[in-house]
Amino acid sequence: MSFTLAEARAADAADPLRPMRDRFHLPEGVIYLDGNSLGPLPRATAPRQREVVEHEWGEALIRSWNWHGWIDAPLRIGAKIAPLIGAKPNEVIVTDSTSVNLFKLLVAAARLSDRPTLLSESGNFHTDLHIASGVADLLGLRLDIAPREKIESRIGAETNLALLTHVHYKTAERYDMAALNIRARTAGTRIVWDLSHSAGAVPVQLNATGAELAVGCGYKYLNGGPGAPAFLYVAERLQEELLSPLRGWMGHAAPFAFTDDYAPAPGIARFLAGTPPILSLIALESGLSAFNDVTVERLWSKSNALFDIFHALMEQRCPDLVCITPRAPEVRGSHISFAHPNAFEICQALIAEGVIGDFRAPDVIRFGLTPLYLGFEDVWRAIDILAAILGEERWRDPKFAVRGKVT
Amino acid sequence: MSFTLAEARAADAADPLRPMRDRFHLPEGVIYLDGNSLGPLPRATAPRQREVVEHEWGEALIRSWNWHGWIDAPLRIGAKIAPLIGAKPNEVIVTDSTSVNLFKLLVAAARLSDRPTLLSESGNFHTDLHIASGVADLLGLRLDIAPREKIESRIGAETNLALLTHVHYKTAERYDMAALNIRARTAGTRIVWDLSHSAGAVPVQLNATGAELAVGCGYKYLNGGPGAPAFLYVAERLQEELLSPLRGWMGHAAPFAFTDDYAPAPGIARFLAGTPPILSLIALESGLSAFNDVTVERLWSKSNALFDIFHALMEQRCPDLVCITPRAPEVRGSHISFAHPNAFEICQALIAEGVIGDFRAPDVIRFGLTPLYLGFEDVWRAIDILAAILGEERWRDPKFAVRGKVT
Repeated sequence: MSFTLAEARAADAADPLRPMRDRFHLPEGVIYLDGNSLGPLPRATAPRQREVVEHEWGEALIRSWNWHGWIDAPLRIGAKIAPLIGAKPNEVIVTDSTSVNLFKLLVAAARLSDRPTLLSESGNFHTDLHIASGVADLLGLRLDIAPREKIESRIGAETNLALLTHVHYKTAERYDMAALNIRARTAGTRIVWDLSHSAGAVPVQLNATGAELAVGCGYKYLNGGPGAPAFLYVAERLQEELLSPLRGWMGHAAPFAFTDDYAPAPGIARFLAGTPPILSLIALESGLSAFNDVTVERLWSKSNALFDIFHALMEQRCPDLVCITPRAPEVRGSHISFAHPNAFEICQALIAEGVIGDFRAPDVIRFGLTPLYLGFEDVWRAIDILAAILGEERWRDPKFAVRGKVT
Repeated sequence: MSFTLAEARAADAADPLRPMRDRFHLPEGVIYLDGNSLGPLPRATAPRQREVVEHEWGEALIRSWNWHGWIDAPLRIGAKIAPLIGAKPNEVIVTDSTSVNLFKLLVAAARLSDRPTLLSESGNFHTDLHIASGVADLLGLRLDIAPREKIESRIGAETNLALLTHVHYKTAERYDMAALNIRARTAGTRIVWDLSHSAGAVPVQLNATGAELAVGCGYKYLNGGPGAPAFLYVAERLQEELLSPLRGWMGHAAPFAFTDDYAPAPGIARFLAGTPPILSLIALESGLSAFNDVTVERLWSKSNALFDIFHALMEQRCPDLVCITPRAPEVRGSHISFAHPNAFEICQALIAEGVIGDFRAPDVIRFGLTPLYLGFEDVWRAIDILAAILGEERWRDPKFAVRGKVT
């Protein structure tokens, strides 16, 4: 397939999501293919942050917990994420980080069963594996880290819990959530789903597939800002059974009664812990407003169109980079990744020319396909620049081999 | 002691900390006696937040993790808190909430010993007690919740850990940290100190008193903004022994190596967990800049002067309110609390007239004495208004009896 710049422009002109691009501040001279790592600044966010800082905090002070709804923010914002992941509004809260929320759900769920094994995938995002290892260590569980292709068959009579990342952070491979939920239910196992690379771009149907427990990230496709708080989902029917190991006051049935005895809040609120970081929380709420009047189906349809063109242009113009993301839409997410022995240097050379993707050790370049604001012309131009970097071997400049702390 | 408005103004004019008041935005028509619940907005914060949101996030995007030092923020900001609590710069990090940090330290420390008991104080701030009960439940420890006067004697051969709040959130009573650390060391017990109502106003000498473990709040005297991340302290000599139960990727020795195996970072960084909420974190850093060129000794000296005048004026003008805070400076913190059967209504009536204190169930009004920005005239005027509310029984208006969610 060939795809010209003129065709890319025509595709942008015909794109029903094109007006959504105006909801973001996209810096001049940058093609941003890293919105799955840190979403860009929504235009609604800067004025709203000024209002929160200068008016709500600055003028109303402590009274804003009531006057401006700070106290309800974790539940209110959770309810806004719910439709993006096929959950009910009372099943999602925003709180803490993905890592901390994983810990809460793994401990809470593992203690409902006396089965000995906690299953996860080798090469899963490492915070998931590390949190799982901490939980296993604490509860005396056996950690079973299996390759992806063996996960389904490893769910068995010994499996207490499986921790699965819906879309793989590196390859973008996607699990069949419905099939695995059936498999787990049959085996009497619970799954904790990590939706960090799904929510906001990839279809997720937690309720419809019978998913019981999930967490996910606020700063990737949800555009909540650097280190935005994460979300946590517990299916309604399980909420009264589960107890968070992190019994902070915000998850208490009566936080302002100041009683010595712990009584968990009814429903999902029991998974709150300490006082939430309001400035970061409200930034996430602003980010979510960029999803107003947009369906997940439309996002996914655009993501697929971006993927197909990205894939085809790469085959045509950059054949040395080997695509490691499956092509079929039903088994992948909304990013596309390529292996190359010099992935690090190539990624640095791209960034130097304004094309921002992600290097993922040891040899992968990852590009986020973010349907709300990425255009077809962006894709065309990014690959045009990449082709030139490869063709002229510009990535061989020694300055691109210097390793920083974060890449 | 009588103390006139003219004398109050003279005291303000002679106050060496008076210029620090200009470092804060203090709204018109408000006397803010709640800076120990939510510190006011420092003037440095609003422009810095705009810069972080609009420039660092908006323009530099993901690159700000390196370019603008986001990745170092938890350690960098921790080092700025260290001098306020008598710690070394490499002994403090800023991360998560006070509740989550308490959990980390309690679990990590409890697992170093096989003693069976976790000791804390009845009537301690309830998040501390709830977190402790969760830890006890998880590790199979016995929770020993004793009245304050028995705490010291209860530290014994069975005591694994004691969780003590340095300054009591309600009464402002302060433990003798040095004496208790000696007592604990002698008994072979470890203490986790909660400095939430100390840091930024009350002298704390963690190193000099041999304190091993501590946490504290970023949004009270440190003026970090609503729900600002908390801090965590581990004495240098203990850092390599302790393992956080929350093994998030930011606490890994090599977060960007993406390895399956967990290896804790050297030093205090191992107590990081997930990606930190940068907007809230940077707001805390701005708040700390209000402490530049101010010593804890000077803060405490002013706090004592405010306390003495507050106490004297209350005895003179509002004798129906019973002071429950000890008068001697060495056994109290930087707030002053009073009991009254109608504390709730009185507090609401005060707020309606612009004097903001805190009601704490069931019958306490608490006033924060924040030496960086509170003046002697503020205290005089607040008590003048309170005396009028009491004298005319204005608090009996039924509208002041309506209970909100947060008071």
